[in-house]
Amino acid sequence: MNRKLVLFFSCPDKKGIVAAVSKVLFENGANIVESNQHSAKSVLNPHFYMRIVFELDSISAEKNLADIKIKLNELKHIFAIEYELNDTSVKKNAAVFVSKEDHCLYELLWQTSSGDIFLNISCIFSNHKVLSSVADFYKVPFIYIPSNFTASNNNNCDTDNADDGHRLKQEQFILNEIAKYDIDFIILAKYMRILSPGFINLFNKKIINIHHSFLPSFPGAKPYLQAYEKGVKIIGATAHFVNEKLDDGPIIEQDVIRINHEDDAEELKKKGKIIERMVLARAVKFFVEDRIIQYGNKTIVFA
Amino acid sequence: MNRKLVLFFSCPDKKGIVAAVSKVLFENGANIVESNQHSAKSVLNPHFYMRIVFELDSISAEKNLADIKIKLNELKHIFAIEYELNDTSVKKNAAVFVSKEDHCLYELLWQTSSGDIFLNISCIFSNHKVLSSVADFYKVPFIYIPSNFTASNNNNCDTDNADDGHRLKQEQFILNEIAKYDIDFIILAKYMRILSPGFINLFNKKIINIHHSFLPSFPGAKPYLQAYEKGVKIIGATAHFVNEKLDDGPIIEQDVIRINHEDDAEELKKKGKIIERMVLARAVKFFVEDRIIQYGNKTIVFA
Amino acid sequence: MNRKLVLFFSCPDKKGIVAAVSKVLFENGANIVESNQHSAKSVLNPHFYMRIVFELDSISAEKNLADIKIKLNELKHIFAIEYELNDTSVKKNAAVFVSKEDHCLYELLWQTSSGDIFLNISCIFSNHKVLSSVADFYKVPFIYIPSNFTASNNNNCDTDNADDGHRLKQEQFILNEIAKYDIDFIILAKYMRILSPGFINLFNKKIINIHHSFLPSFPGAKPYLQAYEKGVKIIGATAHFVNEKLDDGPIIEQDVIRINHEDDAEELKKKGKIIERMVLARAVKFFVEDRIIQYGNKTIVFA
Amino acid sequence: MNRKLVLFFSCPDKKGIVAAVSKVLFENGANIVESNQHSAKSVLNPHFYMRIVFELDSISAEKNLADIKIKLNELKHIFAIEYELNDTSVKKNAAVFVSKEDHCLYELLWQTSSGDIFLNISCIFSNHKVLSSVADFYKVPFIYIPSNFTASNNNNCDTDNADDGHRLKQEQFILNEIAKYDIDFIILAKYMRILSPGFINLFNKKIINIHHSFLPSFPGAKPYLQAYEKGVKIIGATAHFVNEKLDDGPIIEQDVIRINHEDDAEELKKKGKIIERMVLARAVKFFVEDRIIQYGNKTIVFA
Repeated sequence: MNRKLVLFFSCPDKKGIVAAVSKVLFENGANIVESNQHSAKSVLNPHFYMRIVFELDSISAEKNLADIKIKLNELKHIFAIEYELNDTSVKKNAAVFVSKEDHCLYELLWQTSSGDIFLNISCIFSNHKVLSSVADFYKVPFIYIPSNFTASNNNNCDTDNADDGHRLKQEQFILNEIAKYDIDFIILAKYMRILSPGFINLFNKKIINIHHSFLPSFPGAKPYLQAYEKGVKIIGATAHFVNEKLDDGPIIEQDVIRINHEDDAEELKKKGKIIERMVLARAVKFFVEDRIIQYGNKTIVFA
Repeated sequence: MNRKLVLFFSCPDKKGIVAAVSKVLFENGANIVESNQHSAKSVLNPHFYMRIVFELDSISAEKNLADIKIKLNELKHIFAIEYELNDTSVKKNAAVFVSKEDHCLYELLWQTSSGDIFLNISCIFSNHKVLSSVADFYKVPFIYIPSNFTASNNNNCDTDNADDGHRLKQEQFILNEIAKYDIDFIILAKYMRILSPGFINLFNKKIINIHHSFLPSFPGAKPYLQAYEKGVKIIGATAHFVNEKLDDGPIIEQDVIRINHEDDAEELKKKGKIIERMVLARAVKFFVEDRIIQYGNKTIVFA
Repeated sequence: MNRKLVLFFSCPDKKGIVAAVSKVLFENGANIVESNQHSAKSVLNPHFYMRIVFELDSISAEKNLADIKIKLNELKHIFAIEYELNDTSVKKNAAVFVSKEDHCLYELLWQTSSGDIFLNISCIFSNHKVLSSVADFYKVPFIYIPSNFTASNNNNCDTDNADDGHRLKQEQFILNEIAKYDIDFIILAKYMRILSPGFINLFNKKIINIHHSFLPSFPGAKPYLQAYEKGVKIIGATAHFVNEKLDDGPIIEQDVIRINHEDDAEELKKKGKIIERMVLARAVKFFVEDRIIQYGNKTIVFA
Repeated sequence: MNRKLVLFFSCPDKKGIVAAVSKVLFENGANIVESNQHSAKSVLNPHFYMRIVFELDSISAEKNLADIKIKLNELKHIFAIEYELNDTSVKKNAAVFVSKEDHCLYELLWQTSSGDIFLNISCIFSNHKVLSSVADFYKVPFIYIPSNFTASNNNNCDTDNADDGHRLKQEQFILNEIAKYDIDFIILAKYMRILSPGFINLFNKKIINIHHSFLPSFPGAKPYLQAYEKGVKIIGATAHFVNEKLDDGPIIEQDVIRINHEDDAEELKKKGKIIERMVLARAVKFFVEDRIIQYGNKTIVFA
C-alpha cells in the first residue's frame, strides 16, 4: 500500500533544481510516477515550475515525508523555491455559488458524487431559492443569501439590483456562513452577481468562475446576444480565476462549439450550456488535482 | 447528361414564396436536388433567403433556363425577390493577394489544382517577390506590386511603410493590372497591407480575408502575440468579407486549435498557420459554390 | 399565435415533388419555416426524403390541417409518398432502460426537465435498484425488473447471467408494465442486457441505444478495454437504432475524445462517460424533433 | 549559445532512476528544459520510459556530452537502461514513398521546406511518374519504381497487379537505390502497394504509414467506401508504424472529421484527404522530434 503525494514547486530558473529535488525524493524512498515542468522564458527573470507526483511506502511514509519537508525547506535557501505538498487521498472542500441556472451545479454535483472529480462540495450559496431541492437531494447545505439585504434581514425581497451597501452586507453574511465550513476554494457556477474587490481579495487566487463566452471576446453581460449580433460561427465558454477586473482573470480552460446562422441568441444559450458545464468541470478537476499554477495573469495547466 | 444550376434568392418573408418558386422550376423541367432556406427573424423586416440546386436536361436546358428567368423576373414584382442564377459547371475566377507568407497561397493552389475547390486562380498580386516561383510552378501570372510606388515606378524599394500617396498609386496599379483578368472576387491570403476604402468599395462584398485570430478577439496587428499575452487556451482563425473597418466584416468561417502554456508566440504562429489555411480554403469553397449570403454585418452559410 | 408542424415524407425520386407538396402547403395557409431534403442516389431506385417545418395560423389550423392531410393522401397515389405529420407542441413519450450506471440517465433527466430536450420520460426500467432514488427525485415511475425471473417472482436474486427462459419472462414482464404508458420509443441508457429479437421487433426502429465505442470499432463487451489494448489515440461513443445484430443498427450520432498513453482502461471509461451521455442526448433530441429518417442500415439526420 | 539534446531512455521501473539520470546531467552542466515520463503498469514487468530535453553550453558541450555518455553507459549496468541521445540541431533524413495521390507528399514537402517539420526529405520513390514535377520543384531526387519489374527492367508497364516475383525485384531495386541516401526512416505517403515482410523487417519500427480510416475500423482496401456503406457520422485517418500485419501496426496519431448523409464515398475521399495529410504530418513531426516510443503494439507519444 502506497501513499501518493503531489509536490508543486517554483523558483528562479537555474541549473540543478531537478537533480536536487529528485535526489531529496529518492533518498527518502519516493518513487516518482508523474512529472511535468515548465520554464517561463524571460530574459530578466526566467522562472521554473514543476509538478511531481510520487509514492511513498505507507509504513514509513510519515517519517519520509517529514524528512522530505526538512530537505525541501533547506532547498528554499539554495534555490529560493516555494513549494506545496498535498496528499492525493485528501479531498479538497469547495463552496459553490449559484443563482437560478442549474446546469453547472448539476454537473459538479454529479461528477463529485460519481467520484470523477475528487472533491467535497461543502455548501451551496445562492441568491435565489430555486436550487435548494437539488442541494437537498445531494445532502449539501444550501444557504440562501437574499440580494436585498438589510441590517435586520427581515426584508428578503429578492432583487439583483441591490446597491453597494446591500452587497457589502450580503457578502458579510456570506463570510459569516462560509466560516462554518473549512473550504479550500470557491466555485462560481453561474453566480450572476459581481463580488466586491474586498471579498475577492479574501479568497485571492481561490475563486473559479465560468463565463459563457470565449474570452476575451464578449466579456460582461449577455455574451450570447453579443455573439449572435457579431455573427460568429463558433461560441465558447471560459473558466478562469477571478481577479478585480470583470471577466479578466487568469484563464484555466476554454472550449467551443460550432453554431450556424439558424441559431438565435436563445438557441446559443441552450447550446452553450453544455460547453459551460464541461469547461467548468474540467477546470475544477484540474484545481483539485493540483494541476494549475497561476503566474502573472496566466496559468500553467499540467493536464 | 444534366446541367446543374444554383438559384440563390432573397425577399421579404411572406407565405407562398417556396411554392411559387418551386412551381416555376417544376414547370420548366427542373429537378431540385438540394434546397436550404433561412428566415431572418425580425419584427419589422423579416427576410427570407433560399438556395436551390436543380438539374435540367441538357437537351432543353437553354430553353428552360430562359423561361425560368422570365418567370423569376415576374416574381420580382410579386415578392420583390432578388436572385442570382449560376451554372455549377462554370468556374469562378479569383485574384489572390499575398505578401511573404506562403501557406495560404499553397493551400489554395493545391486545392484548386486538385479540383477540391472548383476555382480558377487568375492571377497573384504581391508586394514581395518571394512567392513568384510557386506561381510559376502553377503557371499563374504573378504581378509584383512594389510598396514604395512612385509615378515613374523606377524606384521599387520594398517597404511596408508606404504613405497614403504611395498606397493610392499602388492600388491604381493593381486596378490597371486586375482589369486584364475577368475576376469574380479577391482573396487576401495573408496580404499584410490595408486596402483603402475606395478600393474596398470597388469590390464591395467581393473580398475575402483571412485573419489569424478568433475574431472578435485580437483584431489588428500581431494577434498571436496578443493571444500569448492573454493566456488563452485555444487560438483560432477567421475568414471574413472585408469592409471598411479593420477585421470587422461579416464572418464566413472560423476554426480553432488547442494550445498550452508551453507554446510561445512563435509556436502559436506555427500552429495557427494550419488553421488559417484550412479556414480560408473552406471559406473560398463556400463562396465558389454559392453557399454564402451576406446580410447586415453577418453571413448565412448554407454549408 | 401559430401552430408549428413537422412534415416528414419520402417517395421514389421524381420531378415535381417539391412543387406539389409546397403547393399543398401554400394553398392551405402554411408558412414554410424550415426545409431539408435528401436524394438517396441509386441507379435503380433513387429515393427522395424531405422534412418541412411549417406554421399555421392557430384560428384556422384545424381546418387547414385536415385539408392538408386530404391533399397529401391524394399525393400518395401520384408520387407514392409516405408521410408523417407531427405537431411540434406535442411531447413524445419515452421509456428509459438502465442498469447501474447513472450518467446517461442523469443527462436525459436534466435535459428533459430543463426543456433542452422536448420529451417526457414516462418511466424508467432497470434490472438494478440503485437508480430508483434519482427517479423519485424527478418523479418518474421506476420499475425494477429482476434479472433472475421466475414464475412466482419471489426469487429476485439480481444476476446478469439469467438464461433465455428468464429473459423471455423478464421481457414479458416489461411488456406488461410498459403497456401502462403510452410510449413512442425506448432509450437504452446503458442498459447492459441484450434484448431478444422478438422484443426488438415489437419496437421496430423505435429503440435507441448508446454504445461506448466509435462503431464499427470495438462492438460487444468491454469496448474501453479493447480500445486500450489496441492503443488508439481517440475514443468515441455511438448512438444507434437497435436491430437484431448486436451493436450494428443504423448509426444516429457519434462523437470522440482525444486520449493519450497515460490513460488506462479505467481512465478511458471515465473520459468516455462524458461523450456517451452527450451523444445519446443529441440522438434523442434529433429523434424527438423528427430529424431522423432510417433507410437501409443507415440514417439521414436533418440536423 | 547552447546545444540542445534529447535523451530518450527506458528501463525496468525502479526507484531512483530519475534521481540518478538527473544527477548525471546536472554534474555535467546540463540544464533540463523539458521532461516527460511514463510508467507502463504491469504486475510482472513494469517498465519506465522517459524523455528529457536538456541544454549544454556550446563551449564545453563536446566534453560534457562525452562524459554524460560514459555515465549513462554505467547506468546501463545498474538500471538496465537503454538510451538514445540526439542533437536537436541535426535533421533526420526520410525517404518518402508515393503512388499517384499528391496531397500527403505536398503537405510534407511544404512543412519541411517551411521549417515547421525539421526534416530532410532525401528522396521520393514512386510506382507512378505523375508526381515527378513536384519533386523537381522542391529539388528532391525522384526515383521511379515500375511495378512490373523484370530482370532486364526494359518492360516498365505500370501495373499494380505485379506478382510476388515482381515485388521482390522491385523491392531489391528500391533497396539498391535507397542505399545511396543515408535515411533514418521511411514515410509511406499514400503508397498504395503492400511491402513484403522482408522489406519491413529491414526497416523495423522505421516505416510510418498513413491509412485513410479511423483504425481499427475499415482496414484494407477502399476505407471510404466501407465508411459510406456503414453510415458512420465521422470519418478519420490513422498514422501508424508498419508491421507485418496489414494496417495493424502501433498507432501514432489519429484524427477525425464530421460528415453527413449528403456525403457519398467520393465526397468522403475529398474530405478525408485533409485529415490524412494533417495526421501524417503530425506523426512525422512527432518522430523527428523524438517524441515517440514503441512498446508492444502501442506507442507512447510525449506530445
